[in-house]
Amino acid sequence: MQKIKKVAIIGLGLIGSSIAHAVRRGNIAAQIAGHDASADVLARARVLDFCDSLHANAADAAQDADVVILCTPVGAYKSVAQEIAPHLKPGAILSDVGSVKSAVVRDVGPFVPKGVHFIPAHPIAGTEFSGPEAGFASLFDGRWTILTPVRGSDPGAVERLRDFWQSLGSQVDVMNAGHHDLVLAITSHLPHLIAYNIVGTAHDLEKVTQGEVIKYSASGFRDFTRIAASDPTMWRDVFLNNRDAVLEVLGRFNEDLSQLQRAVRNGDGKTLFDWFTRTRAIRRAIVNTGQDVPSFGRLPFQVYIPPPKARKGSAKKKKKAAAKKKKPVARKAAPKTKPRRAR
Amino acid sequence: MQKIKKVAIIGLGLIGSSIAHAVRRGNIAAQIAGHDASADVLARARVLDFCDSLHANAADAAQDADVVILCTPVGAYKSVAQEIAPHLKPGAILSDVGSVKSAVVRDVGPFVPKGVHFIPAHPIAGTEFSGPEAGFASLFDGRWTILTPVRGSDPGAVERLRDFWQSLGSQVDVMNAGHHDLVLAITSHLPHLIAYNIVGTAHDLEKVTQGEVIKYSASGFRDFTRIAASDPTMWRDVFLNNRDAVLEVLGRFNEDLSQLQRAVRNGDGKTLFDWFTRTRAIRRAIVNTGQDVPSFGRLPFQVYIPPPKARKGSAKKKKKAAAKKKKPVARKAAPKTKPRRAR
Repeated sequence: MQKIKKVAIIGLGLIGSSIAHAVRRGNIAAQIAGHDASADVLARARVLDFCDSLHANAADAAQDADVVILCTPVGAYKSVAQEIAPHLKPGAILSDVGSVKSAVVRDVGPFVPKGVHFIPAHPIAGTEFSGPEAGFASLFDGRWTILTPVRGSDPGAVERLRDFWQSLGSQVDVMNAGHHDLVLAITSHLPHLIAYNIVGTAHDLEKVTQGEVIKYSASGFRDFTRIAASDPTMWRDVFLNNRDAVLEVLGRFNEDLSQLQRAVRNGDGKTLFDWFTRTRAIRRAIVNTGQDVPSFGRLPFQVYIPPPKARKGSAKKKKKAAAKKKKPVARKAAPKTKPRRAR
Repeated sequence: MQKIKKVAIIGLGLIGSSIAHAVRRGNIAAQIAGHDASADVLARARVLDFCDSLHANAADAAQDADVVILCTPVGAYKSVAQEIAPHLKPGAILSDVGSVKSAVVRDVGPFVPKGVHFIPAHPIAGTEFSGPEAGFASLFDGRWTILTPVRGSDPGAVERLRDFWQSLGSQVDVMNAGHHDLVLAITSHLPHLIAYNIVGTAHDLEKVTQGEVIKYSASGFRDFTRIAASDPTMWRDVFLNNRDAVLEVLGRFNEDLSQLQRAVRNGDGKTLFDWFTRTRAIRRAIVNTGQDVPSFGRLPFQVYIPPPKARKGSAKKKKKAAAKKKKPVARKAAPKTKPRRAR
């Protein structure tokens, strides 16, 4: 793609800082301007040095920029849009990274000046960490970014934004905002709500101690806690701004759960077995499309901790067995490992 | 510990074969006898060669063994116990690896001959894979095994079984069967039921295609599919045999979910934010106790996939940036990586 003169990143958390790192990595823009509403975040961004200029005012960062990307929590979009709108240059692309899209069209759309191309976007990438220190250049590599152009979006501008995200390492899809919100409600928002819920339930169960929950978390619970560690502000805004789609899929989830609950209560082994067999096939499909590795990124043989007793025993045999078992698998698994979980 | 003369492993799936590998690794027993009800599994075990002797009859494997471990699905315990009971030698330890314990006491207890030490056990370790090929020696390293002695269990025998599991690399805890079942209902059985449920819900949602669910699975859903890929027979038996505890925690889960659902419906941002903040703290506690790594075993910087566009651009700058970013973190993260998720 043609090199961009100026990119403005409004909000320097995990996603904003990762965009800056990736723009630098790909040498995509001549200038990266950054803004964050928090003076503390701005100071940390200055130390991390991933922007060419940092601004206490969003309007100063957006001024003269060819591409402006909102990376604040979705709940702040409306006021930010209102603030920067008069300073956007004609022909600029105004985009964002929010996990919901209909609400963004609703909140930002009315402020977009004539001549500015407003194209909401959502990179499906992230980790459970937040803040400017959490960003890294390869966050978007191989992940999907969904663009949701609004009615009347200029096709040329949509293509320029597609190029931009591809140059950050991402694959790009285009769909309408409403469909995006339903797809993400099932693949992301519901899983997060459920994970938040189950971790809260475990916390409140009086008959089982917190120590026990944490100690035996490896038995399944642990995976939920990671999802439930995601940024609270971002996720509050997701649920406040994708209410209808979330409530729709949650209704379906509850119906299904009643069915499984009844099967457990009635000792209906066939229903349980058939259900569990079907879900296993879905997992296989995901591994086959390259969206995860079979071992889920955990490398089972990579770390070998000798058991305390065996250490005294047959050191030779152990060493031989370890060499035979560990190395080929670790070598094989490592190159397939994908960047961390996406939000 | 003193070397055991003969260990019998009844059932040669993921856990049974992993025990055999770990016994070999630690040189813990002079003879490992294996049995599986499936001729096919027996044949594959023969090729994999992790037992010293393989038997089509469970009784033949158990004969004269000092330690007999049931590793079949829990639903098969009763008939296996009935079959091997007359062949158990006085002073032998009869144990198992089932994910539920009260049902095991109920099903196996009545068949245990006088003089045989019956001590149910549950190693909290596993992966989403099954079968004799899935086993590996380090599966139990650093994981917890819970022993649930029955009334009148010989303390000396309990200590011998503790030594056995420690020599396989495990840490050992002792509690009663009922408490075990409640703890595991919240840390393992409920998370699995929920994961199975949500993956089924996604599969059935007509407005979102299967392709979309799979393509955008990285946004949270993916983590659930892995849990929902676990062995269907084993999990059917878990839910059939831990009904009361599962229904109890499921009731709590449903109450909590109603509260979150109401918060979403009413746009109650404060309730959502407070809930999400609390769950984040639980995650931190789990990472701090060493039951997971901050990055969840995913190594974000380990694999660098150059973006298609940037590749043509500033190769030098990219190379330099990659070297700066990738290596120290990959090195730092790798030694902390734990073996795969436990069941």
